[in-house]
Amino acid sequence: MSEEVKMIPGNSLITSTPEEGRQLAVKMARLVIKVTQPDAEIREKLRPEYAEDPAMLIAVGQVVATEFATIAAANNYWRK
Amino acid sequence: MSEEVKMIPGNSLITSTPEEGRQLAVKMARLVIKVTQPDAEIREKLRPEYAEDPAMLIAVGQVVATEFATIAAANNYWRK
Amino acid sequence: MSEEVKMIPGNSLITSTPEEGRQLAVKMARLVIKVTQPDAEIREKLRPEYAEDPAMLIAVGQVVATEFATIAAANNYWRK
Amino acid sequence: MSEEVKMIPGNSLITSTPEEGRQLAVKMARLVIKVTQPDAEIREKLRPEYAEDPAMLIAVGQVVATEFATIAAANNYWRK
Amino acid sequence: MSEEVKMIPGNSLITSTPEEGRQLAVKMARLVIKVTQPDAEIREKLRPEYAEDPAMLIAVGQVVATEFATIAAANNYWRK
Amino acid sequence: MSEEVKMIPGNSLITSTPEEGRQLAVKMARLVIKVTQPDAEIREKLRPEYAEDPAMLIAVGQVVATEFATIAAANNYWRK
Repeated sequence: MSEEVKMIPGNSLITSTPEEGRQLAVKMARLVIKVTQPDAEIREKLRPEYAEDPAMLIAVGQVVATEFATIAAANNYWRK
Repeated sequence: MSEEVKMIPGNSLITSTPEEGRQLAVKMARLVIKVTQPDAEIREKLRPEYAEDPAMLIAVGQVVATEFATIAAANNYWRK
Repeated sequence: MSEEVKMIPGNSLITSTPEEGRQLAVKMARLVIKVTQPDAEIREKLRPEYAEDPAMLIAVGQVVATEFATIAAANNYWRK
Repeated sequence: MSEEVKMIPGNSLITSTPEEGRQLAVKMARLVIKVTQPDAEIREKLRPEYAEDPAMLIAVGQVVATEFATIAAANNYWRK
Repeated sequence: MSEEVKMIPGNSLITSTPEEGRQLAVKMARLVIKVTQPDAEIREKLRPEYAEDPAMLIAVGQVVATEFATIAAANNYWRK
Repeated sequence: MSEEVKMIPGNSLITSTPEEGRQLAVKMARLVIKVTQPDAEIREKLRPEYAEDPAMLIAVGQVVATEFATIAAANNYWRK
């Protein structure tokens, strides 16, 4: 497999805080879309379509919630 | 990553009670939408669209259920 | 956060039986919709829309299944 | 809460075999729809709508998969 | 409950390899559809509808992913 | 079952890094679609349909997130 890291920034699920874990979840959700649609111009054209469509905004929220569940488990929920 | 906490109020998944955990789930679900559509005016315009559409209300419920699953696990289900 | 319990009846995920856990899942799913659309009159108007639409009924089933997964884990699946 | 068991046949998630667990998942998925739309006549009218619509059949499959995940965990995956 | 195994081939979630687990996930996803729509003729008519519709193909992928999560956990992820 | 590995490259969920796990999740999501629609010509025709549709791109993200959750658990989240 390619050595070049493309889909998980830092190539790790471990973060210092829940907030950073949440930011990672958002990035991971976006990077899958980038891999599926690599043409930046098309992605730019699609952005207003989903960012102004409430059903799609909710669907983005669902993906982020799912990614975050994995990241939170990886970090033992940042329990002290 | 930014120091400014934006997506998880209090930067923690730990809450005193299930009810507070549920409120956190609702907030986290909303904050993802805010990050994806940062324009407050557009968000205000979209609100009645989803709040009066039963399919979207159910989809919001799905996102909250998913966020809550993570929060509940983080809190060991508030078992005594 | 507010002291007033609004989203989890009894402010607990623990129930005596699977059936009661299932009833709690249904209530939790409904209460998220109530919080997202607080106007009772609008909710009443939406009810027949989703209760006579098979796709939405299935989507309600998905939300309840997700809530129930959390409640069942919280109760150690009511194993004896 | 009502004593009358309506949503989980046998009021238990424990089954002897994976196949029985799967049957329970299907029943639980159907009983949520029954609770949400209690009118048997309307439900009968809706049945052909979803049973001949591939998107809805797939969505039913998603709900059953989610219910089954919970039942399988409750039974420790019927490992011997 | 019926003795006749219909929804889980072999009446077990345990498989020798991840690949066999994946095949089981696909079969389980299909068998739920068969139980919900028992008429083979109708199912045959629906097949091209979903197999040529990208949204439905993705939805099938979601169901298989969910079934596979359960099967993988049942097999302790086939760790050696 | 067939000896020929078709749905899980390498017939294993174990990867060296989170990034490789993510690549596996993307491949597994695609291979389910290939199994459901084996005709390469039809799949090629469908590709632009979903790659230029924001709702479908988000749905692909949901499938990948679900597959990745399983792979991440299999690898104990690549904790050191």
